[in-house]
Amino acid sequence: MGSLPGVSLLLLVASVSLRSSPGVDAGKILVFPVDGSHWVNMNLLIQSLHARGHEVTVVRTATSWYVKESAPHYRSITVTLPEAISIEEEDFFVTFLAKMLEIQKEGASLLGFVKFYWEMLPSLSMIHQQASLLGVKILENKTLMQSLRDTQFDMVLLDPGLPVGVLVAHELKLPTVFNVRWITSGEGHFVVAPSPTSYVPTSGNAVSDKMNFGQRVKNTLHYFFNTIIDKFLVCPHYDRLVERYFGPDVNFYHLLQGADIWLMRVDFVFEFPRPTMPNIVYIGGFQCKPSEPLSSELEEFVQSSGEHGVILMSLGTLVKGLPVEITSEIAAAFAHLPQKVIWRHVGERPNNLGNNTLLVKWMPQNDLLGHPKVKAFVAHGGTNGIYESIFHGVPIVGMPLLFDQFENCLRLEARGAAKVMDATKLTRQNFLETLQEVIHNPSYRNNMKRLSSLHLDKPMHPLETAIFWIEFVIRHKGAAHLRTESYKMSWYAYYSVDVVCFLIAILLMLTAIVVGSIRFLCIRLCRRKKTKKE
Amino acid sequence: MGSLPGVSLLLLVASVSLRSSPGVDAGKILVFPVDGSHWVNMNLLIQSLHARGHEVTVVRTATSWYVKESAPHYRSITVTLPEAISIEEEDFFVTFLAKMLEIQKEGASLLGFVKFYWEMLPSLSMIHQQASLLGVKILENKTLMQSLRDTQFDMVLLDPGLPVGVLVAHELKLPTVFNVRWITSGEGHFVVAPSPTSYVPTSGNAVSDKMNFGQRVKNTLHYFFNTIIDKFLVCPHYDRLVERYFGPDVNFYHLLQGADIWLMRVDFVFEFPRPTMPNIVYIGGFQCKPSEPLSSELEEFVQSSGEHGVILMSLGTLVKGLPVEITSEIAAAFAHLPQKVIWRHVGERPNNLGNNTLLVKWMPQNDLLGHPKVKAFVAHGGTNGIYESIFHGVPIVGMPLLFDQFENCLRLEARGAAKVMDATKLTRQNFLETLQEVIHNPSYRNNMKRLSSLHLDKPMHPLETAIFWIEFVIRHKGAAHLRTESYKMSWYAYYSVDVVCFLIAILLMLTAIVVGSIRFLCIRLCRRKKTKKE
Repeated sequence: MGSLPGVSLLLLVASVSLRSSPGVDAGKILVFPVDGSHWVNMNLLIQSLHARGHEVTVVRTATSWYVKESAPHYRSITVTLPEAISIEEEDFFVTFLAKMLEIQKEGASLLGFVKFYWEMLPSLSMIHQQASLLGVKILENKTLMQSLRDTQFDMVLLDPGLPVGVLVAHELKLPTVFNVRWITSGEGHFVVAPSPTSYVPTSGNAVSDKMNFGQRVKNTLHYFFNTIIDKFLVCPHYDRLVERYFGPDVNFYHLLQGADIWLMRVDFVFEFPRPTMPNIVYIGGFQCKPSEPLSSELEEFVQSSGEHGVILMSLGTLVKGLPVEITSEIAAAFAHLPQKVIWRHVGERPNNLGNNTLLVKWMPQNDLLGHPKVKAFVAHGGTNGIYESIFHGVPIVGMPLLFDQFENCLRLEARGAAKVMDATKLTRQNFLETLQEVIHNPSYRNNMKRLSSLHLDKPMHPLETAIFWIEFVIRHKGAAHLRTESYKMSWYAYYSVDVVCFLIAILLMLTAIVVGSIRFLCIRLCRRKKTKKE
Repeated sequence: MGSLPGVSLLLLVASVSLRSSPGVDAGKILVFPVDGSHWVNMNLLIQSLHARGHEVTVVRTATSWYVKESAPHYRSITVTLPEAISIEEEDFFVTFLAKMLEIQKEGASLLGFVKFYWEMLPSLSMIHQQASLLGVKILENKTLMQSLRDTQFDMVLLDPGLPVGVLVAHELKLPTVFNVRWITSGEGHFVVAPSPTSYVPTSGNAVSDKMNFGQRVKNTLHYFFNTIIDKFLVCPHYDRLVERYFGPDVNFYHLLQGADIWLMRVDFVFEFPRPTMPNIVYIGGFQCKPSEPLSSELEEFVQSSGEHGVILMSLGTLVKGLPVEITSEIAAAFAHLPQKVIWRHVGERPNNLGNNTLLVKWMPQNDLLGHPKVKAFVAHGGTNGIYESIFHGVPIVGMPLLFDQFENCLRLEARGAAKVMDATKLTRQNFLETLQEVIHNPSYRNNMKRLSSLHLDKPMHPLETAIFWIEFVIRHKGAAHLRTESYKMSWYAYYSVDVVCFLIAILLMLTAIVVGSIRFLCIRLCRRKKTKKE
């Protein structure tokens, strides 16, 4: 019953409101982004803020990979780091991916686990060391700090994946808004909302919200492991800065937890339902928009697929080259299909490529996903691509390679909207079977269409929601009424450990008094009887 | 920085959207309301649903106090109960209030606590017995059930204060939406969201979210007490029905926890920030609207107050008469003020009433609260009045008498927007001082204005939000993707008790093995040495 509000209408409302919303003066916003695919999201938000008349200033490092020094919609502050550990370089990720695939190939084992963290942890520490160095460079630079003060910013907008912005915000006494999914210790919710490990999958653990006993044990261990890594490997980089600049009374973690608004890049058609907080605002899919017409050549290629339709494949911006033994299997499977294939591929060209497959260095992914001829999307499971797929209702063949991609793919598989492949175990045969199943079994498309209709049925477009709450923080100088301060309690008070111990002590004392009294009475009675007998 | 979107604009948006929102066909909604002030809220929601073209059917008892049999905006199903325990009668509450005031007068003590529950618990049980009888009457009536089935309702909307509607919804296999603040065991959140007693005040305990150790102990005890009352006094009435009609596999509490959407009559300018869930939608203040012009006589009276302004007093619809020893003190204090007073008063007229005080049996409360001459509102702390005060930014002198009114008043006092009086300790002197403080100390008004501006600054009017989510449930036949099913887990699994025990056991075993091995080695070494020596 009931017809659904169309996509176009939803977006029409969003675009109209973004232009005409009343009574908002221009604000001054200081932005601390994270480079790479995170920047794609942040940049979109900045563009919208600029269009609304706000002045945006972006802090970047001189070696930044994605964040350009000059752009029409922001001015930038460039910080040169002493020894630029250029972690963001392409080569780094090519090598990293190769190592990770090697480990993954060996299958799930304790040795694999150790090898994985042996590779991962030094890089993680190095990234945070670099970010904290950026903090030092800013906080030590008196001219820069004075100019920041003079600008009289209204708020700091930051991606807390690299949370150095919270230190600067604290120094400038400014309210903060997070554009967040990942934070130092994993998924953002874990820092600010209750997260029972009995049904909330922890970061790095690809399980659903319905776990058996073994999965719950693993999930709990994962939680402890993430906490330990955060506490001993990540936080010390920032703790040192907090100690040096703000003294012993300020706690780095409290600065993180004290953000006014968490714009969470999550939607519950994707994430499993879980506890949340009043200052968490969900903006998952805020980057999505209707597709635009394709170029005439691409449209011609797509139309040439006839009734069979088209398959898209892209493994994201980070992955420059899959090993050739994998790509040749993929190419062989594609060659067997009656569908046409558009494959975004940067590395060596497989020599067994079929006539039906078009290799491109870049593709208009969103416009293609919105094309009615597209039957399936072979994707690595980055969130940008996933939300675009959900938006357009295209089922996914997941091929996760790194980081959160495994968990992301699993979330769609759990809803019956995707089938996930292990890239290291991929053969032309099993890849072909998977493709055919996703194309021909209508449940995948139907489930994705259902997710799409739920995702689109919102009172406001998520981008509009994000802008509303950023401007709310500007108008009211924060959002303290939505933010609990319970994180300032000691852990034993927060978890009522002291109260429970106290109540147990009282109970034991009462029991002791009762038992003691009874014993005392018994002894007295016995003695009396004895005396009588005697 | 930034000017606030005006009230009128917010409401203009709301009313326009409610009329013109696209693509929604008429739904059929079955409503189980709660009588009294709860009905005032539910009725408003029903009126809006009717205006949107939905067909609404309300289930009522023949002796219903507020819910009329016929109304232009709904059709009703009237159920006659065998022995109508007409709990809703006015006399009942007059006697109940007198008893409660008597207990309150004696001050906080264990005896007072026992007396209070001695009075309260039988009434509570009786109310739920009556509600469960209503359930029996409906579920046993085959003609009625068949006609309900034939109508093909789209959903059930209910106030889970008396949760019999969830049983009928389960029988009819319909999705449910709650219009809720109170549920069987207290405040609604406690049933569906994590609620750490370390900083979330439990129902019936008037404390803020920042508690000292003693308050946290009391809060935890309150939580246990509420749980015990719910488990042994309230739920059995419904458990029996569930057992009889749905068999042993269905659990009444799971039916409650499984509601698709919780429209929570709460706003965080009022409630302390606390954990929540994705399917909780906040609609606090959805009943509020801009004021309309007063009648000419009332306007004349208000204007005659000159620069001093007007004070309003109303203790809500439930309270028909305060004891005359209190009202005469109130009248005497009012007579000392230069302000004019409008006092909604039903009982005996105090004979020491000043010339400045107008006694009325009813007043256009919302229109008066929106009048710029109104300086303060003497209120009992019912949520309708509180949200109207917040909406119009009028500071409150709280005089809580029953139920949640104590907690409600405390929430505003904690924000510096109200001062609370103990009605049983009220004298003309302390009442006058309190009034003067709230009128002359600008902080009360400023704080209330601040709450007002935060409350009004929303992307959508809360009434529009409520309608959106009701129609969402109609369109998608529920909202399962927002609802966790973790409540179906056993308590020890939910709280990871089994996992923690298992991990501790493993740890102990490992320790035992290590210690054992070391001991074994030591013994072997010692023996070898001995042998060598020998």
